[in-house]
Amino acid sequence: MPRVNVFVTLKPSLLDAQGRVVQEGLHSLGYNEVSSVRIGKFLELDIEDTENLDEKVHSMCERFLANTVIENFRYEVVK
Amino acid sequence: MPRVNVFVTLKPSLLDAQGRVVQEGLHSLGYNEVSSVRIGKFLELDIEDTENLDEKVHSMCERFLANTVIENFRYEVVK
Repeated sequence: MPRVNVFVTLKPSLLDAQGRVVQEGLHSLGYNEVSSVRIGKFLELDIEDTENLDEKVHSMCERFLANTVIENFRYEVVK
Repeated sequence: MPRVNVFVTLKPSLLDAQGRVVQEGLHSLGYNEVSSVRIGKFLELDIEDTENLDEKVHSMCERFLANTVIENFRYEVVK
């Protein structure tokens, strides 16, 4: 059964408020060398053998898993 | 400047409620071949050149970025 990893990230031009908060948390713990943090989602999908796997995953991302107005996505078929 | 990608995932033995909801959403859109969805976090860190990069990232994950009681983490230095 194919495993597909999907990465959904905020578009680079947009402020990642959650990332900024995490960065400040890291600084207050002494990790001052961290100059940027951006946070996205990582989805692991198990998909039964199917035709057009690539096309289907692309359509799932566009329709549902990512908000393409503000987010980018990419995916990789692992096995 | 090194870029480090960190993946934080719920331990496999734990129910991923958010993933189940997304799976049901995909099914209701007709993607019935999706048999499992698990959702984690994907963090992109830019870190200034530093000694012991690997050790520092490991410590950030253990202390702050992941809750190691319920989550696993892994990371990769990209450049």
